[in-house]
Amino acid sequence: MTDPFEGRSVLVVGTGLVGTSLGLALTRAGVDVRLADAKPEILAEAVGLGAGRPEPEAGGPAALAVVAVPPEAVAAVVGEVLQSGRAEYATDVASVKMLPTAQVRERVADPGRYVGSHPMAGREISGPGAALADLFEGRPWVICPDDGTHQQAVTRALAVARLVGAAPMTMTAAEHDAAVALVSHTPHVVAALMAGRLAGAPGHEVRLAGPGVTDVTRIASGDPELWTEILTANAAAVRPVLEGLRGDLDRLMAALETPVAGQPVLRELLRGGVDGRSRLPGKHGTAHTEFATVIVAVDDRPGQLARLFADAGAAGVNVEDVRIEHAAGQALGLVELDVRPGTEQELAASLRERGWTIRG
Amino acid sequence: MTDPFEGRSVLVVGTGLVGTSLGLALTRAGVDVRLADAKPEILAEAVGLGAGRPEPEAGGPAALAVVAVPPEAVAAVVGEVLQSGRAEYATDVASVKMLPTAQVRERVADPGRYVGSHPMAGREISGPGAALADLFEGRPWVICPDDGTHQQAVTRALAVARLVGAAPMTMTAAEHDAAVALVSHTPHVVAALMAGRLAGAPGHEVRLAGPGVTDVTRIASGDPELWTEILTANAAAVRPVLEGLRGDLDRLMAALETPVAGQPVLRELLRGGVDGRSRLPGKHGTAHTEFATVIVAVDDRPGQLARLFADAGAAGVNVEDVRIEHAAGQALGLVELDVRPGTEQELAASLRERGWTIRG
Repeated sequence: MTDPFEGRSVLVVGTGLVGTSLGLALTRAGVDVRLADAKPEILAEAVGLGAGRPEPEAGGPAALAVVAVPPEAVAAVVGEVLQSGRAEYATDVASVKMLPTAQVRERVADPGRYVGSHPMAGREISGPGAALADLFEGRPWVICPDDGTHQQAVTRALAVARLVGAAPMTMTAAEHDAAVALVSHTPHVVAALMAGRLAGAPGHEVRLAGPGVTDVTRIASGDPELWTEILTANAAAVRPVLEGLRGDLDRLMAALETPVAGQPVLRELLRGGVDGRSRLPGKHGTAHTEFATVIVAVDDRPGQLARLFADAGAAGVNVEDVRIEHAAGQALGLVELDVRPGTEQELAASLRERGWTIRG
Repeated sequence: MTDPFEGRSVLVVGTGLVGTSLGLALTRAGVDVRLADAKPEILAEAVGLGAGRPEPEAGGPAALAVVAVPPEAVAAVVGEVLQSGRAEYATDVASVKMLPTAQVRERVADPGRYVGSHPMAGREISGPGAALADLFEGRPWVICPDDGTHQQAVTRALAVARLVGAAPMTMTAAEHDAAVALVSHTPHVVAALMAGRLAGAPGHEVRLAGPGVTDVTRIASGDPELWTEILTANAAAVRPVLEGLRGDLDRLMAALETPVAGQPVLRELLRGGVDGRSRLPGKHGTAHTEFATVIVAVDDRPGQLARLFADAGAAGVNVEDVRIEHAAGQALGLVELDVRPGTEQELAASLRERGWTIRG
């Protein structure tokens, strides 16, 4: 198989979480990785972790530079790297694509040597010490070529994506920004605003909270600084999604003013929610409709989960997936075991014989 | 211990999911349960499941009636049950409290013999066949006495709550409705409106969806008919919560019009979300901060989970909780094992020795 890098190295500029993880993954895949970072101690840490070697002072250009810096810094770094001959082609990892792409087009002499990338992977902790070689395994890696993009830039970015185990997909920068506005940025806004309503609420109200509001607000714990930057960078794409949502909110609130007369509008909006949700995988979405679920009550005695799985194994039924739901503050839980349809009765009967309490 | 029911029965009127579950739980606790339902076949099914005996034609009053009917029907049934002498006191199970309480006060001759209850438990499927004796285990059971409520009504409702394993708490009907508006009804609206934005979205946008939007929209799958009724019944308490949320949404959208200048407002709203979220238990909330997490990569070969738990058990480390995250559409998953802080290194080392890939 032809070496997409033609025997040359890949240069990673910026050795934070993503850059260092890329270095680790590419090194593991046998690529010669060179590293650079504005901060010597950060660079040293990444080198020490095995993410690659320091970029040499001299020598030929890298086949590709992956510029792992914040969105607003991408164009300047890409320009410098290409114009100084540190790399033949360049890509980035920023979570918005129109901003860096437009700035590269304006400021860089040969913008076709750049193609935007967005590996959709991350962790809540940052820095080189948090880096993982398998950070990108199975995650989408979006690549956004435009009419002027050189084919080699795309070929090499695709090669990086595949080598680190990601799932590449191409779309325009505008399509990308609209997509992440819908499925990542607006949900974050919505979760944060719902969670904001809890901040000053009386204790007796919060005490009634169950798994529902916990799910809705989970991502509201994300770093406010990071998300301020993300929403600022993608404001133009987020605004229309929020406008649509606010329009629906206005209609729902008007319907609640005359609750009985408003029921058809309520029903329509709630049905729209069911339809929209069914497009995603998850507990009641497409990914799980292929399984049957056996629900087992567990208490908090040590080793219960291990015994449960051992007993399920002894029953000869393969457990495909599992979820545990805890009653808040209680020493009880329900373990939901997903199995192939047709095997659930057998598993339930076998577990009952071994003393487990099966629900439903 | 004094029998709170003084040797008499508890009458359950309405043998759907909640009524039949109550019957099963109270019967298991040794209470003489009598059942009634407008539909003979539904009553017969509940009796057949062991939830109690049919209400006799004659005989003395039950100590307490639990009226398990929809909110708008509560007052009429409570009135009839008390006035005809079928029970000495009555409570209900409706998920709103101001409406039935006000209607009972207006229409029933001795309204102090009624106290409102809301056992916060349920299932997505309904009907007597879905009933479970442990439906209420560890769940909140809210009781809403007012100035005129007879103490015996409260004593007997509390006794039911405790006998079925629920966690009783008292508050006013107004406090209850405001509480569920905040922690249950508004989150449902928010999830449904976010999910509604996905309904017509292009495939390439939805394909980038990850666990975040899946969590935010999970409860949007709930029954639109049921939720239309709930939101209608609690419209007065839900409106102010939505007004607060819309105010914050307006501020956020205005900030996005001038993204850089708007950053302080964005930051403030996002921080409010972090603060609000921290008041709930969950993945990064109070309930889990006491555990350390070991993250293990698994693929989809049969028996992986059973082997993982067996190996964890062999390591002598108790697994307290587990979550599985799947990369959408990929045959890979990350299993997060919660263990007591201080035991995670030992578990990780032991699992690595047995060939598992540990992340982070």
